[in-house]
Amino acid sequence: MKKRLRYGLVGAGLTSFIGSVHRISASFDGLTDLAAGCFSRDSTKNRECGDFLRLDPDRVYDSFEEMAQKESLREDGIDFVTIAAPNDVHYAAAKAFLMHGIHILCEKPLCYTVEEAEELKALAAEHHCLFCVNYSYSGNAMVKEARELVRQGALGEIIDVKAEYLQEYLADDIGQTSKTMNAMSAWRKDPSVAGVSNCVGDIGSHIENTVACITGLRIKRLAAKLDYFGQPLDLNANILIELENGAHGVFSSSQVCIGHRNGFVVRIFGTEGSLEWHEENPGQLIVAKKGQPLQIYDKGMTYISPVAAGMVRIPAGHPEGYYEAFANMYKTWVNAVLKYENGEELTAQDLDFPDIDEGIRGIRFIHACVKSSREDAAWVDVI
Amino acid sequence: MKKRLRYGLVGAGLTSFIGSVHRISASFDGLTDLAAGCFSRDSTKNRECGDFLRLDPDRVYDSFEEMAQKESLREDGIDFVTIAAPNDVHYAAAKAFLMHGIHILCEKPLCYTVEEAEELKALAAEHHCLFCVNYSYSGNAMVKEARELVRQGALGEIIDVKAEYLQEYLADDIGQTSKTMNAMSAWRKDPSVAGVSNCVGDIGSHIENTVACITGLRIKRLAAKLDYFGQPLDLNANILIELENGAHGVFSSSQVCIGHRNGFVVRIFGTEGSLEWHEENPGQLIVAKKGQPLQIYDKGMTYISPVAAGMVRIPAGHPEGYYEAFANMYKTWVNAVLKYENGEELTAQDLDFPDIDEGIRGIRFIHACVKSSREDAAWVDVI
Amino acid sequence: MKKRLRYGLVGAGLTSFIGSVHRISASFDGLTDLAAGCFSRDSTKNRECGDFLRLDPDRVYDSFEEMAQKESLREDGIDFVTIAAPNDVHYAAAKAFLMHGIHILCEKPLCYTVEEAEELKALAAEHHCLFCVNYSYSGNAMVKEARELVRQGALGEIIDVKAEYLQEYLADDIGQTSKTMNAMSAWRKDPSVAGVSNCVGDIGSHIENTVACITGLRIKRLAAKLDYFGQPLDLNANILIELENGAHGVFSSSQVCIGHRNGFVVRIFGTEGSLEWHEENPGQLIVAKKGQPLQIYDKGMTYISPVAAGMVRIPAGHPEGYYEAFANMYKTWVNAVLKYENGEELTAQDLDFPDIDEGIRGIRFIHACVKSSREDAAWVDVI
Amino acid sequence: MKKRLRYGLVGAGLTSFIGSVHRISASFDGLTDLAAGCFSRDSTKNRECGDFLRLDPDRVYDSFEEMAQKESLREDGIDFVTIAAPNDVHYAAAKAFLMHGIHILCEKPLCYTVEEAEELKALAAEHHCLFCVNYSYSGNAMVKEARELVRQGALGEIIDVKAEYLQEYLADDIGQTSKTMNAMSAWRKDPSVAGVSNCVGDIGSHIENTVACITGLRIKRLAAKLDYFGQPLDLNANILIELENGAHGVFSSSQVCIGHRNGFVVRIFGTEGSLEWHEENPGQLIVAKKGQPLQIYDKGMTYISPVAAGMVRIPAGHPEGYYEAFANMYKTWVNAVLKYENGEELTAQDLDFPDIDEGIRGIRFIHACVKSSREDAAWVDVI
Repeated sequence: MKKRLRYGLVGAGLTSFIGSVHRISASFDGLTDLAAGCFSRDSTKNRECGDFLRLDPDRVYDSFEEMAQKESLREDGIDFVTIAAPNDVHYAAAKAFLMHGIHILCEKPLCYTVEEAEELKALAAEHHCLFCVNYSYSGNAMVKEARELVRQGALGEIIDVKAEYLQEYLADDIGQTSKTMNAMSAWRKDPSVAGVSNCVGDIGSHIENTVACITGLRIKRLAAKLDYFGQPLDLNANILIELENGAHGVFSSSQVCIGHRNGFVVRIFGTEGSLEWHEENPGQLIVAKKGQPLQIYDKGMTYISPVAAGMVRIPAGHPEGYYEAFANMYKTWVNAVLKYENGEELTAQDLDFPDIDEGIRGIRFIHACVKSSREDAAWVDVI
Repeated sequence: MKKRLRYGLVGAGLTSFIGSVHRISASFDGLTDLAAGCFSRDSTKNRECGDFLRLDPDRVYDSFEEMAQKESLREDGIDFVTIAAPNDVHYAAAKAFLMHGIHILCEKPLCYTVEEAEELKALAAEHHCLFCVNYSYSGNAMVKEARELVRQGALGEIIDVKAEYLQEYLADDIGQTSKTMNAMSAWRKDPSVAGVSNCVGDIGSHIENTVACITGLRIKRLAAKLDYFGQPLDLNANILIELENGAHGVFSSSQVCIGHRNGFVVRIFGTEGSLEWHEENPGQLIVAKKGQPLQIYDKGMTYISPVAAGMVRIPAGHPEGYYEAFANMYKTWVNAVLKYENGEELTAQDLDFPDIDEGIRGIRFIHACVKSSREDAAWVDVI
Repeated sequence: MKKRLRYGLVGAGLTSFIGSVHRISASFDGLTDLAAGCFSRDSTKNRECGDFLRLDPDRVYDSFEEMAQKESLREDGIDFVTIAAPNDVHYAAAKAFLMHGIHILCEKPLCYTVEEAEELKALAAEHHCLFCVNYSYSGNAMVKEARELVRQGALGEIIDVKAEYLQEYLADDIGQTSKTMNAMSAWRKDPSVAGVSNCVGDIGSHIENTVACITGLRIKRLAAKLDYFGQPLDLNANILIELENGAHGVFSSSQVCIGHRNGFVVRIFGTEGSLEWHEENPGQLIVAKKGQPLQIYDKGMTYISPVAAGMVRIPAGHPEGYYEAFANMYKTWVNAVLKYENGEELTAQDLDFPDIDEGIRGIRFIHACVKSSREDAAWVDVI
Repeated sequence: MKKRLRYGLVGAGLTSFIGSVHRISASFDGLTDLAAGCFSRDSTKNRECGDFLRLDPDRVYDSFEEMAQKESLREDGIDFVTIAAPNDVHYAAAKAFLMHGIHILCEKPLCYTVEEAEELKALAAEHHCLFCVNYSYSGNAMVKEARELVRQGALGEIIDVKAEYLQEYLADDIGQTSKTMNAMSAWRKDPSVAGVSNCVGDIGSHIENTVACITGLRIKRLAAKLDYFGQPLDLNANILIELENGAHGVFSSSQVCIGHRNGFVVRIFGTEGSLEWHEENPGQLIVAKKGQPLQIYDKGMTYISPVAAGMVRIPAGHPEGYYEAFANMYKTWVNAVLKYENGEELTAQDLDFPDIDEGIRGIRFIHACVKSSREDAAWVDVI
């Protein structure tokens, strides 16, 4: 029986922040070995990265097409590939690996259009591939705990959702021209690489996914106002939403809200209680039950549900952070692939990672926001 | 020269929460004496209240019309009246006192319709009366400080506003019929007394006023979704706004958000910084300037602006609360009336209380929210 | 039956911060009328204060002895006196009023020595006077709630106590000579007026009282290190304590801890749970029960005990502060005096204010701290 | 030139929490390879662990003596060893590896006695070995930032230190006999394995080290009261301290303070400002400068000093936790060893990890606490 997996990387070169996050997280539990990569379009950088990571030079590839083909022919070929390159690569790379029957963990957003996304889903089914879209925040223990509380009915029926993801790192872009704009996250601001949206695509999409994960409810329609501040893609967004059960709420995402470093906050309100989770303090969950004192749930305590407890590696009070949420995503994913490759039956719990349907839903959400805003915040159906 | 003022009360009987708040706050600084009242439509309760408050029985009136007339004829008649009865009384009572030239401090919302509000404004001008609408939260020292920071340009240009006023005290009303509904705040839930809105009218209106106070910007248009949960008036609201300078943002008000006792939070984002104020911790202001550490401003410290410092009675760290904000409102109001009655010129700072124009603006806001929601969150102009 | 009380003031002139706090707080619930005063040793200031407060000029006295004597002879004489002058006045003034059978509410610390304190106790008993020492923080609703939780056994047996009262307002005194020192709180720094201690006497004494109030346990012995930083009286203190049940803990008080405005925090640890109260956020109590999520108790909620609920005037979430705690102290005190004067039996709950025994205990604590520190933090018995 | 290091593990088997922390942290930056180990006294477990970690079976040793000897003879022998076994192993294992010239990273506390500690220091010097003691919290970016602020004089002269490390996980041990006590952390509670102290040794020692790291000041003397609650070793401690510059303060450590998961908090007060760091929210530092608003420093921001910035791997607001602090310790350590082995000069910054002198100081501190408590909190010299 397989006990570990070999994986490859597309993108995630030495200067990529998210690249190192993937490598560290994938290795947290000793269940993976990095075996191949196509790290950069620049051949020199690609080689340097392979060397630093001690890869066999034969398995550092100039193109992801070559990598997909050659790895699929090796006895010791990779079991899955992580696609962590900019958005413009996702669709083509995913397609290439799926055609060779290689499982995929892909960064979000999944691709540019809903049509592409549906095509990837069909290919995955045809080639018997598992597919994970890296909405990493759902890997947090307390997001799982929040979902458990909702499932158990602790909140009653959901009546409102307020969520926001506020950053400040592009505040200086306001009023800049393409000549004076800073280079930070340049590709995210370029429609030809990022797609139809910058801010909603990059972080608004996390709101959509995490809220859906916790509530189990999809967005029925939305009315969005995106702010561009003179740039080609959005930097700020305020969105009225209606969930499939009729509840309303607001989402806000921003890269220009000074004072917010990475302020991702989700609040879910129900007829019997509410909960609140802050990604900047990810090990706690604030729970309110009607008529009772507020409660602060801490990860690592015995009252936490088994599903959430399984996402915690160290004792209560010892902070776990961003890497650990990624590592949890990998742990679930790798175990699923291991079981699948070993011919075992996969349960719902085994498949508790964001799958390609979530990836498709994410693309729908981004397009709906952009469309609504173009129509002056008219309602746009998402389902 | 007058050194103290006599005032009367309409409403504010012994069982009225807001009544005791008005009486305590009005007396905080030793500048007022309660001299007359019409506390209740119930004659016995009216008399009991007058006795408890040691009023001359001749100055406890059965109707506000009688009170307005008789007080205006006395040598020692009241200088101003506080109208703190339910909403349905505001317009008629204000009109009665204005006709007799008595200054008015009136609870919000000012009245039912914009037309009534405009009429009151005209009457006040005609009869040379000062008029204050009791948006009490702008009496908080740190709201003044926030306004100063915006005026000084510490935030640059305003680009987004996020504000919410979340309560939970009507959570049990969801799904109730008129027979099973609890009696708490019954008049607020009755359209014939409260007017077109419950939640937006009662607390959404505070968001509108405080945001305008801090930013100096009016709302140009809004798109609102109010939730009624089977009741005649709204219990929950989510509102997209557009300010007159083009900035967008979201307001939320609710009486059914479990876990929020009186969660009034205002956040203002600009191109150079942001600020955040929580009414539940009113003596602090969180200020972010671009590229700098977050700063926690405390009331009572020497770095606070003179205007805000003038609203602080006790040393830094000693908590001041809801009464004190009311008392600040009264202090400013009473000083303005004193100066006016003494024939002194009134400066802008003397008039730094919410005036009838703010009262009118508040009515516009409430109607716009209701109208937009009826039209499925279509944009409605407010200016 | 008496329904209101007349009271007099010793000290508490127009420039006295604590004076206005007493006057506002005493009038919060409409149960008292200020009827007499001796506000200042300076006759002009004394008269001015009487005028501002609209007192009958005959009842503005040049000395507290005269006031005690003349008020005791009037039909409409004061029912009680509030002594809010600097420490050097407490003993003599209290004695004068007790000799004339007038009830006393006295600022803390009660007097200079344990002997004086015992003498006042004997006089109060002899002259049938009620006596309240103004440890105002025990007037906070959530301090009462904390006491209830301990009484109910929610914390099990107390095993540790950590409490601190940290201010910063004398930070500039460090290293100053008497010539360069700032005038702020000058009398507190003068041994001839303040007594043996500044910092421990002024704010350390609140720690002692509030901890005893909540736990019901007295300090058996203590080992203290006071820091003088070149001044005649202490500015900073760290104290090891041992409670009568054998539990240990630490107290810290300071007027030089920069960053702390009025940081009074009490934490009580037991075998089954703990609680934590911050005076800067007085309406909340953090409660931990073994193996459960932390709970945030909010004043004004239905789960609060009746005793604490009786100290709350406004709904949950609306902040109450420093004045309101004082007003609670007055409410309990005035009701006790009213009942006593009406010949009613006084229950333990009626007498739920800090009495002269607590005043005596406070003096013992201050002396023990000073003595221990002089002996290089040797243990000193307090009981 | 060496670019990576091989290391070995003593202890840190598969069921050891701290073992996995070491392995993950050591590999964070791709600078180490685990090459050898002696994981357990139980041969089967030792082998299983080696297999899981894919070690060459020849390099999984039955004893640390064998490991030290054989590794020192190999061409590809380990560059350093991490000793992460219980306390009773530290001294003997460290000695064995030093005798063979192998650099050492050892868990704290370093050993049982000051004499042992001094001997290890002498051996390290004799055999030219670098030696790191794993006070991991000083690996936090914001601890480094705090140290920088003190060094720059932002706090002026240090006048008080208050620090605590409060846990609750042994609360159930109170009143238990050895038969009924739970097995959690059993070795820590056994004097024959843990040494003279449980609570002070395990977590009080972190207080001592982190305070010294930040302030640059050693403790001159201390007066401690340890609570045993019927157990052989301490569960709770309150300690008065005097620093070498004459400042006083209090330390508290506990394993029975319910409500505190891992509450390690350090507060440093100076004549010009103060700072506060909470390990449970390690990416922030609260800084107060005299007369200014409180400031919240966030890791990852541009205003952070270069030394602290070098300890941050991901953008501001993305939480880093316990593993990352360990990884920072390893990063500094590994770079120092690499430079040393490459014959480069080591600067003070290269050696910015807790060295054997800090290990010795830690042992002195633990013994002083136990001795003082035995003498009823008499002062005991530490320097």
